[in-house]
Amino acid sequence: MSVATLERSVDISESLSATAQKVEAMLDRLLPRGEGPERPLLEAMRYACLNGGKRLRPYLTVCTAHLFDVDDERAYRTAAAVEMLHCYSLVHDDLPAMDDDELRRGRPTCHIAFDEATAILSGDALLTLAFDVMVDDATHHDAAVRIDLVRGLTEAAGAHGMVAGQMIDLAVEHCAVDEHTVQRLQALKTGALITYSAEAGAILGEADPDQREAILSYGRDVGFAFQIIDDLLDEEGDQDAMGKAVGKDAAAGKATLVGVLGRDAARAKAEALSDRAIASLETFGEAAELLREVARFIVARRS
Amino acid sequence: MSVATLERSVDISESLSATAQKVEAMLDRLLPRGEGPERPLLEAMRYACLNGGKRLRPYLTVCTAHLFDVDDERAYRTAAAVEMLHCYSLVHDDLPAMDDDELRRGRPTCHIAFDEATAILSGDALLTLAFDVMVDDATHHDAAVRIDLVRGLTEAAGAHGMVAGQMIDLAVEHCAVDEHTVQRLQALKTGALITYSAEAGAILGEADPDQREAILSYGRDVGFAFQIIDDLLDEEGDQDAMGKAVGKDAAAGKATLVGVLGRDAARAKAEALSDRAIASLETFGEAAELLREVARFIVARRS
Repeated sequence: MSVATLERSVDISESLSATAQKVEAMLDRLLPRGEGPERPLLEAMRYACLNGGKRLRPYLTVCTAHLFDVDDERAYRTAAAVEMLHCYSLVHDDLPAMDDDELRRGRPTCHIAFDEATAILSGDALLTLAFDVMVDDATHHDAAVRIDLVRGLTEAAGAHGMVAGQMIDLAVEHCAVDEHTVQRLQALKTGALITYSAEAGAILGEADPDQREAILSYGRDVGFAFQIIDDLLDEEGDQDAMGKAVGKDAAAGKATLVGVLGRDAARAKAEALSDRAIASLETFGEAAELLREVARFIVARRS
Repeated sequence: MSVATLERSVDISESLSATAQKVEAMLDRLLPRGEGPERPLLEAMRYACLNGGKRLRPYLTVCTAHLFDVDDERAYRTAAAVEMLHCYSLVHDDLPAMDDDELRRGRPTCHIAFDEATAILSGDALLTLAFDVMVDDATHHDAAVRIDLVRGLTEAAGAHGMVAGQMIDLAVEHCAVDEHTVQRLQALKTGALITYSAEAGAILGEADPDQREAILSYGRDVGFAFQIIDDLLDEEGDQDAMGKAVGKDAAAGKATLVGVLGRDAARAKAEALSDRAIASLETFGEAAELLREVARFIVARRS
């Protein structure tokens, strides 16, 4: 790694970390508190979201929103809604009937820390709250923009997006799968929401169709690159750095591109995707430098 | 029961049944189909929704929408979205970690007919699809009206509505509870969505504030009356007529108003609520006759 690359990595780490803190603060503000017998639900929602994650998805939303001079209140509200949706998906995916994970970001998963019923309900409530945040006037003054935000999220998250991806992931466990199937699975399971995370900033910023298409291309490529590296780290990484069990995907017979292509070809693919993502941003010039950095960071990261 | 009441019951039954058929047709149109490894998800979503239910909630939406001359396409799209949300809640509530029910409307529950993972995911996808239907241009030309529809639904369904109600229901099982707690539980668990079902028609119809408040009062009262009668039927009814296990709430130590007040006082309360609901509709004159009939039907029903 050259000195220049190292310096860039430091910059993006600081930027990610500063943004993650603001996302955490916004989540803390938007997540409900309360007493009474429903309190475990509200605590589980907070537990699932306020966990010091990398906040890659909201970072993409905020960086893209800033490209279009969206103010922080709107950008971070939308980013927090995207993160709530991501956290709901983790809570449900970790359930015993799904991936049966007990560890997430170095802590017990939600159904271990609370119980299964509370975990299911807190996921349901986070999904609902994500939409609630997006339709609030404070997220954008123009109702048509808020409608666009919600529509994009329902498409990315629903039966033709993330939920379908999780279904396919479970359905093809221990099956021989080809590259096309893995690519479709990952485009749905993780790609759709990552792509939307970037798109949401462009929607908020009322980007023109060409700009929006450029952001979408960028989002699709970084989303896929992110997932390939995630799978490589699951094979190569150590549990302490990852904060979750590693080597589990292979043991569970999960379909991954690393399994289909091998490690070297998979890493080369991720790097090519990152390069193409960066190329998509040409129209934005210098203003898109952080988005370029994050595309580089995604393939260089170690956890 | 007088002859007049019997005749009215026949009318409302026919109207309910005709509307239920149209709701079923709209659900069939809106629910996705598809091949590929995600097919069980799409089939489970259809299984959960296309089951010949009474469709009380969409009936309220359609009747209220018709009060304001909303066309059928908009009214039935909204009604179907409300029913999707209701069906998602049933799928999740029936899960082993929640109420652990194996029978619903005379058929195996979703996790029995498919499996737990598919049931969880199909609930998630139905919740997401309900919002997707509401934000579509075809539901209303004015984005601000669609935003109102979504906002009302997130409030009724989320951590301050239905999901909180289910959490409380689980939390107070086998506990001694007072009338206030039961009333709050039921206002959240079933009342909020029934109230919203009526309100949604008024939102679609761009009702003025007084009209909307009248519909809200009506919705709150019929929602509570409905739940009291549901609990009475659970104690008194037979499994064949109900299409689900009966006597189960008492066995599970569920908090119900029948348990707190006794059967006679609970029935009297339901009848008083129905009367008050009917009185709320005075401003609408003859046009609201079907809504009055449904308030009477709710306390007279046997299943």
